[in-house]
Amino acid sequence: MDDKILNFFKKRRDGHVSGEELSDALGVSRTAIWKHIEKLREEGYDIAASPHLGYRLVSVPDRLTEIELKWQLGTELIGKKIFSYREIGSTNDAAYKLAESGEAEGAVVVAEYQTKGRGRLGRKWVSPRGKGAYFSVILRPDILPRELSIITLVSSLSVARTIREAVDLAAFIKWPNDILVNQKKVCGILTELSGETDKINFVIAGVGVNINTKKELLPEGATSLAAEKGKEISRVDFVRALLKNLDRYYKIFNSGKLDGIIKEYKKLSAVLDRQVQINYHNQLMSGHAVDIDKEGALILRMDSGFCERVLAGDIVMLR
Amino acid sequence: MDDKILNFFKKRRDGHVSGEELSDALGVSRTAIWKHIEKLREEGYDIAASPHLGYRLVSVPDRLTEIELKWQLGTELIGKKIFSYREIGSTNDAAYKLAESGEAEGAVVVAEYQTKGRGRLGRKWVSPRGKGAYFSVILRPDILPRELSIITLVSSLSVARTIREAVDLAAFIKWPNDILVNQKKVCGILTELSGETDKINFVIAGVGVNINTKKELLPEGATSLAAEKGKEISRVDFVRALLKNLDRYYKIFNSGKLDGIIKEYKKLSAVLDRQVQINYHNQLMSGHAVDIDKEGALILRMDSGFCERVLAGDIVMLR
Repeated sequence: MDDKILNFFKKRRDGHVSGEELSDALGVSRTAIWKHIEKLREEGYDIAASPHLGYRLVSVPDRLTEIELKWQLGTELIGKKIFSYREIGSTNDAAYKLAESGEAEGAVVVAEYQTKGRGRLGRKWVSPRGKGAYFSVILRPDILPRELSIITLVSSLSVARTIREAVDLAAFIKWPNDILVNQKKVCGILTELSGETDKINFVIAGVGVNINTKKELLPEGATSLAAEKGKEISRVDFVRALLKNLDRYYKIFNSGKLDGIIKEYKKLSAVLDRQVQINYHNQLMSGHAVDIDKEGALILRMDSGFCERVLAGDIVMLR
Repeated sequence: MDDKILNFFKKRRDGHVSGEELSDALGVSRTAIWKHIEKLREEGYDIAASPHLGYRLVSVPDRLTEIELKWQLGTELIGKKIFSYREIGSTNDAAYKLAESGEAEGAVVVAEYQTKGRGRLGRKWVSPRGKGAYFSVILRPDILPRELSIITLVSSLSVARTIREAVDLAAFIKWPNDILVNQKKVCGILTELSGETDKINFVIAGVGVNINTKKELLPEGATSLAAEKGKEISRVDFVRALLKNLDRYYKIFNSGKLDGIIKEYKKLSAVLDRQVQINYHNQLMSGHAVDIDKEGALILRMDSGFCERVLAGDIVMLR
């Protein structure tokens, strides 16, 4: 009912809607309408009321609710179903459990605050309350477990493109799963899977973006979109734009056009053509990053002249 | 208490144990001992009693219970903890849930009957009641998801070796995950995983062996060890021997000596040096199987002379 009322307002945001009109259209009493209006106000919607003109939606809170995110989303797959939480342990864990229970591909778990946010390799992912966006998408791609990096690649590209399009900041992708703005991390990606040797049951594509997070709350080397842009950013608009890009690139990936995605990805790579050092299981390897192949592996030209295919690790850019 | 009594018997299987002796050793009343003896009898243990000599363990049921399997098991890792069920949905599902809740590496879920036995790619695995052995081991190897086939390889080799050693039948491994005796399938392996791009959370190594199963109950092309051997086989002895081999080969794998495992595996391969056809996602590919590489991929020499690395698929041996 709340979303129906909101949709009513949103369709004519400039004008007024009378209680009578709402009551007639939605088939409930004017008292019921008033109660719903009160509830929406408590959730941060500023709704003015005047005796003759009726209600007017003055402003919408920047909250990652299902109704706000779905507003004119228009995606084919991603976000057709959205599970929204103010607070959650980890969106990846929640999405994983949903996927295990059979939840369909494209479902999104989103939260404004994570108490147990996780990064790669069990690392903690700092998720300060109410300023970032943390979400996880259930995907069921027809790939082998060994091809999982491709999904990280699709997510990374979607995030970098969204930052460029929606916030107009020059975002780059630091292989394998960080997004940088001005050489600082604004987003981390955690791709998890459940599967067997030659089949994936499901993939959880997790994304955590520091949107309006105060820099002081973030670890060293991290920043937020707002800090780099110098102004607050609508989280709802950002996540909606990101879901659209994920929808678009995942569709391209599914149609088998991986080459185009990798080409686009490479243009936004922060590591290609750089001298890098990679730490994998405390083994260090240095070389010149020359390519990303179609399994998402980094191709490193060593000083010896030979090339190595690097599948995983933490990267440090040397010069 | 039941296992303590059984251990008492087993330590001197030829002799008698008086109720008094048991009662003294275990610190409970003779009535309590009698009640436990009754319970063991209900579970299939044949325990004779004579007024002057006391109790005597005449025979042990061939049941896959924790106490029977752990008897002189002596493994370092595999089977330190055993969860035993008469009937279960799927041992892989149960082990997966246990692993998600943090159960340690090496734990085994075993059942005598599966109501929802699964094979590769969601296929049904026929698990007739009380005649086979179905079990799943929780492993936490330090590998990448792309290296998962190695675990299937370790499991396959362990099963084939156990059939050769414990049953004295010439077992061969049909890539990727079947074990054959006289060209018919006696065992299937289902390796599942949960992980992220560059780390495995856990692997479930599932094994289903047709031990004493009547051939008529099995699908076409399948057989049981008893049918090929011409006599019943102790399931407990077989599974115990298999857990020991798994323990041994997994330890070798963990010590980094994969080359030796692959060498042994290749000797028992049913497909190497054969002309084969592989069906993967309804795409057919034919060639000569020339090698298995250290990621568990099959190397196929095509008619063109070029070699293909095959990561997954169903194999048909052509000649």
